Amino acid sequence: MSSMPLACAMDDKKKVQESLGIALVGLGSYSTYQLAPALEQTRYCHLAGIVTGTASKERQWAGKYDIPTTNIYNYENFDNIADNTDIDIVYVVLPNFMHAEFSIRAAQAGKHVICEKPMAMNVAECDAIIDACAKAGVKLGMGYRLHSEPYTQEVMRYAQEKTFGDILYLTAEAAYRSTGNPNQWRLNRSLSGGGALVNMGVYSIQSAVYGTGENPVSVTAQEFSTRPEYFKDTDETITAQFEFASGALANIMTSHNIWANSLRVSCSQGSYELEPANSYGPLSGRSTKGKISFPHESQQKLQMDDFARHILEGTVNRAPGEMGKRDMIIVEAIYKSIAEGNQKIALALGNMGIV
Amino acid sequence: MSSMPLACAMDDKKKVQESLGIALVGLGSYSTYQLAPALEQTRYCHLAGIVTGTASKERQWAGKYDIPTTNIYNYENFDNIADNTDIDIVYVVLPNFMHAEFSIRAAQAGKHVICEKPMAMNVAECDAIIDACAKAGVKLGMGYRLHSEPYTQEVMRYAQEKTFGDILYLTAEAAYRSTGNPNQWRLNRSLSGGGALVNMGVYSIQSAVYGTGENPVSVTAQEFSTRPEYFKDTDETITAQFEFASGALANIMTSHNIWANSLRVSCSQGSYELEPANSYGPLSGRSTKGKISFPHESQQKLQMDDFARHILEGTVNRAPGEMGKRDMIIVEAIYKSIAEGNQKIALALGNMGIV
Repeated sequence: MSSMPLACAMDDKKKVQESLGIALVGLGSYSTYQLAPALEQTRYCHLAGIVTGTASKERQWAGKYDIPTTNIYNYENFDNIADNTDIDIVYVVLPNFMHAEFSIRAAQAGKHVICEKPMAMNVAECDAIIDACAKAGVKLGMGYRLHSEPYTQEVMRYAQEKTFGDILYLTAEAAYRSTGNPNQWRLNRSLSGGGALVNMGVYSIQSAVYGTGENPVSVTAQEFSTRPEYFKDTDETITAQFEFASGALANIMTSHNIWANSLRVSCSQGSYELEPANSYGPLSGRSTKGKISFPHESQQKLQMDDFARHILEGTVNRAPGEMGKRDMIIVEAIYKSIAEGNQKIALALGNMGIV
Repeated sequence: MSSMPLACAMDDKKKVQESLGIALVGLGSYSTYQLAPALEQTRYCHLAGIVTGTASKERQWAGKYDIPTTNIYNYENFDNIADNTDIDIVYVVLPNFMHAEFSIRAAQAGKHVICEKPMAMNVAECDAIIDACAKAGVKLGMGYRLHSEPYTQEVMRYAQEKTFGDILYLTAEAAYRSTGNPNQWRLNRSLSGGGALVNMGVYSIQSAVYGTGENPVSVTAQEFSTRPEYFKDTDETITAQFEFASGALANIMTSHNIWANSLRVSCSQGSYELEPANSYGPLSGRSTKGKISFPHESQQKLQMDDFARHILEGTVNRAPGEMGKRDMIIVEAIYKSIAEGNQKIALALGNMGIV
């Protein structure tokens, strides 16, 4: 027992030494209500800086999180972050059309990069981000918080270990009903790159892939519209079916007009489901063997600590850039299927992005 | 209290007077394990006769259910049933390719008809059945037991009363994994008319329609195959999306390769689900308002009593022939969508089959 104070002191010292500084780029609601609070709980990283285009937010955040003026940037002077040794990681939380630009500028500034989903506006931009990070020798991670989340890790384990036998059918639904400001950037294709599919649909795609542990070998998709006066420019509801080499079939739905949040898997020897499956938690799950239950922690805390440990300790990168690119390839295939009259599109992804 | 014995005696007398005699045509497992036991519980009808092509079953059933020899028919002498006043209703429980023939022969014999699902091999046969019953002046009902089942009636009520607001999205899954005799009639298209779709898929179609209270205005469908060596001749797995005039969207799945049995409905102000949704029960349900629960009764008992009361008392025919025909029109549209490369097929069903 006498050693405990010493151990605690060593832990505290270790924490200070091994915690990486994160700068959040874009201070919208996700940074405000999820990432910044999570960074007060993280063990391997901390909020060290902010990048914002709104001067009033600079003062609010500086006061609330004790951020020195030298660690505050705007979109113009952002590149000066290269000289700031307080900042190890840049987390890009901007509207989709700015992901590539700021991820690349961050890499060029020598900072590790976390990029929110969807990775970019298209596959070409994903490649540009990956190349920039490789060239700069920095790490790149996607903001895929669920890969660090225990319910999700449990269903990934079921797939790997065939806990319930062969996976036969998976449904993944990620959707909410949007009735707010019709001029929000998410509903403007030039700013978002797409509608429900690039926003919530990425969760469904992710669920299908980590839920089976495989990349799809084909995708067939359908688009449905009931409120064209509101969804003038972006997809409202999309369904898609994925075939997998194992024989599994996935049927996903994403929408900006429907409430849904689930992952259900039917296997040869049982079934299981998460509902909600991709909210900020707590998640909830059950299987034919009983309730699935884990203590709730901030998903963003777990995610950012995992990425920091990847940098610090060489642990696995749970959501590398290749995964974000893979998902964007699937997004583009879904749009292509719809554009070609719901035709089945073959995919040759190999193990791209499978961790 | 003194009147109770008299009331009971009157009820007993009334029962004898008002119970219709049913002849089961086809003594496979559904007749053996579901219908015949249910007919021991029915109030308004009873097992009066059998029609079978297997002589050994004649003896077994006659002994077990005390059926007089005069009420036993085979497929050749079946038409003599016209002269049998013990038989009011003929229930056709044969393989699909025999539905039309025996429904029509029953009508021509002056008997009311219950026809198992799917109604027939195609829409043209459905029309022939409906015409024969109309011409003979007999009642025609589908073997859609769930229309008499309280969980199903509850979700029908939710749709009618908008208990949870507008219906936005419905999924209906009806599937089982077939690994038995590959030569069974269900896997032979010339005997079945189709695979999973005409067998379990009819449940999914039904769920989508009674779950929304509307007929679809379009259908888009996809077919998937993983075991072509087993499913040589019939569809293994089909998914389909239905659009409804209200704006609701349904996504259904049916399969002979997957375990699934559910109906889930997402509305603007809540959601609900039945799982199982189309087994012989007990069914199980829950909504965002709590558990859905009803006492279990034989669904087949409820169904046959409802049909008998329709004849005896003029109550509603919960599953008329038009409903079976409507579902076959949807089946044919699904196959057409698949044949035409997953194209969306418009439907102009009006209120056909909506009760």
